[in-house]
Amino acid sequence: MREITGGVTAAKGFQAAAAAAQIKYKDRTDMAMIYSEVPCVAAGTFTTNIVKAAPVKWDQDVVYHHEKAQVVVCNSGIANACTGAEGYGYCRQTADAAAAALDIPAESVLVASTGVIGMQIPIDRIADGVKAMAPRLSGTVEAGTEAAKAIMTTDTVKKEVAVEIEIGGRTVTIGGMCKGSGMIHPNMCTMLGFLTTDAAISKELLQKALSEDIKDTFNMVSVDGDTSTNDTVLLLANGMAGNPLIDQEGEDYEVFCKALNFINTTLSRKIAGDGEGATALFEVTILGAESKEQAVTLAKSVVTSSLTKAAIYGHDANWGRILCAMGYSGAQFDPEKVDLYFESAAGKIKIIENGVSTGYSEEEATKILSEEAVTAIADIKMGDCTATAWGCDLTYDYVKINADYRS
Amino acid sequence: MREITGGVTAAKGFQAAAAAAQIKYKDRTDMAMIYSEVPCVAAGTFTTNIVKAAPVKWDQDVVYHHEKAQVVVCNSGIANACTGAEGYGYCRQTADAAAAALDIPAESVLVASTGVIGMQIPIDRIADGVKAMAPRLSGTVEAGTEAAKAIMTTDTVKKEVAVEIEIGGRTVTIGGMCKGSGMIHPNMCTMLGFLTTDAAISKELLQKALSEDIKDTFNMVSVDGDTSTNDTVLLLANGMAGNPLIDQEGEDYEVFCKALNFINTTLSRKIAGDGEGATALFEVTILGAESKEQAVTLAKSVVTSSLTKAAIYGHDANWGRILCAMGYSGAQFDPEKVDLYFESAAGKIKIIENGVSTGYSEEEATKILSEEAVTAIADIKMGDCTATAWGCDLTYDYVKINADYRS
Repeated sequence: MREITGGVTAAKGFQAAAAAAQIKYKDRTDMAMIYSEVPCVAAGTFTTNIVKAAPVKWDQDVVYHHEKAQVVVCNSGIANACTGAEGYGYCRQTADAAAAALDIPAESVLVASTGVIGMQIPIDRIADGVKAMAPRLSGTVEAGTEAAKAIMTTDTVKKEVAVEIEIGGRTVTIGGMCKGSGMIHPNMCTMLGFLTTDAAISKELLQKALSEDIKDTFNMVSVDGDTSTNDTVLLLANGMAGNPLIDQEGEDYEVFCKALNFINTTLSRKIAGDGEGATALFEVTILGAESKEQAVTLAKSVVTSSLTKAAIYGHDANWGRILCAMGYSGAQFDPEKVDLYFESAAGKIKIIENGVSTGYSEEEATKILSEEAVTAIADIKMGDCTATAWGCDLTYDYVKINADYRS
Repeated sequence: MREITGGVTAAKGFQAAAAAAQIKYKDRTDMAMIYSEVPCVAAGTFTTNIVKAAPVKWDQDVVYHHEKAQVVVCNSGIANACTGAEGYGYCRQTADAAAAALDIPAESVLVASTGVIGMQIPIDRIADGVKAMAPRLSGTVEAGTEAAKAIMTTDTVKKEVAVEIEIGGRTVTIGGMCKGSGMIHPNMCTMLGFLTTDAAISKELLQKALSEDIKDTFNMVSVDGDTSTNDTVLLLANGMAGNPLIDQEGEDYEVFCKALNFINTTLSRKIAGDGEGATALFEVTILGAESKEQAVTLAKSVVTSSLTKAAIYGHDANWGRILCAMGYSGAQFDPEKVDLYFESAAGKIKIIENGVSTGYSEEEATKILSEEAVTAIADIKMGDCTATAWGCDLTYDYVKINADYRS
């Protein structure tokens, strides 16, 4: 596996474009289009929030009930959530506009939205944006990057990644981009993520690979504990790499899954590290769990603890808050057997052993916690299962961004 | 029922004292004692965090396995949590010191701690504090207030309340005090709360009354979603009011429960409104639920949503975040049937009807949300059950307090 430059346009046959459609922002692009030269099999995972945005409902229909998809149209100004039948109608009109512009069926158009909840989208400007983007589609790295920038909301950096793998003697590429910074606590799914691959793979295995992988990647990210109404990850595979079709589990499928995991882990860490207002990526690893579920519960409880996140912001080795968050997680363990470490580029330190302080150096701990990415590792000594969750620190700027969001 | 001045010393036969024992703070009192002239029946509810502080374990033994209790000793400098066998030994030594100073059995001494997790308490200073407080015990309102001040940590105001009721022709008093500002998300229990009454009531019914009531009061409070290791509510009843013993459910028991509910609701609102860094008390009421459990789940999900809390700080009627938090709560409902209102001293406004915006005035909504206590009311139109939860807004100061807590 080899990481390469690029994102959604890295795989063969994928093109992208962006437009400044004036949906919300006046001075930047706010629409993106991802297009495959040939129809793709598509997999998707979606928010478990029962308040689902209209585009989530639209895409679920396309992914679950249609064989092929060929284009994704996204706007980053208005979420089109809590907009009733009118909002769902705008998804159809967006798909119709793209179908007309690209001469493809409306049922092969996926739509995605992110932004303010509760407002209706200005469908004329969306349709104009679609018309403007279609003739500008390009397979260059730059076109992919422009699309990655256009889907940002409170994100401070664009998020894309791509890798090459070998399958059946052919080079297969997987690339992806995502956005997400606040209202991030994906459950069975995530923020907005768009993944493209030229692998030849059956629709069934594509969905299986994605559904399995997000449990360890996007579902392990939390910025603020708020599961969005719009969470969507789409994975399009157009088969243009020419590898033997992956239609059963085996070595080729494993290679594909491993590359997909790299893509999703990289994007997950990018989201967590760019959490609203964050100054640090906060990674929590649980070791020695009896079951995967127990490890996941403990890791997520720590990574979402407001008190722990504020302590990370303060570079404070306040381990009591970590043990406390493990304790109220609902998972069973013996607090008096826990070992806890902090680790970063500046080193690794054992903070507690069997539930009590090791008498560690606060100075050294603070140094380790002052890096841009810090990890807490808790060993509960019950078994061999592990899990890692990603989050960020809680800062003044998180409050500022979210007290002012609509104004 | 009549509210009166005072707190833990309001009921007949209860005395209190405070001391500056230098446990953590150098310039204020940090220990409190509550004493009854005669032995009491005692009820208690405790944290469900599996990381339980040593005093929680000690008090559980006293409440569950002994008939009577007579004194509570509290320090507000160090939590005595995650301190192993050594920490539990200090509970025993604290009880021994109080037993010697007051000439009562050590098994009738309740202990409570709040403060930093993971440090051992300086037992000599605790013992000196106990010795200093015993001769200073007093039944005045002022002595109760001094005790309420001594148990504060990041609290900005002391929290006490008292009421009088009539039972069997006798005046019965219930009073209480509590502390709590951060790490507040009580589960089956709460922060530190100390309630006293001169009612004559059986130990069994006293525990039942308390256990039932906290479900609707302290358990509905959340400042930051972090369930503490030290949550404890103790209720002591010494029988000195001379009412006919309440030893079965019936009218007298109902009168007692109603007064207890007033005490606990008042203290719960005081904790939420004084949440760390808070500028506003945020109350969430769910109407029209099918079951109490559903209403509780929805109310707690909204009141703990970081995004909603930040919007309340910004006086922003960001109703999408409220509907979103209801949607990811795990409770089932139809988003397209929800009506939502904001209410405060400045008025009441309907924000959404059947899941979509009413086209309300943002200006009027902002005015309503600019008060010190604001309520969101969601009607899900499925049944007759309701629940109310209390929290606060999320502010810069919450982050500041918790990034700097140990330094």
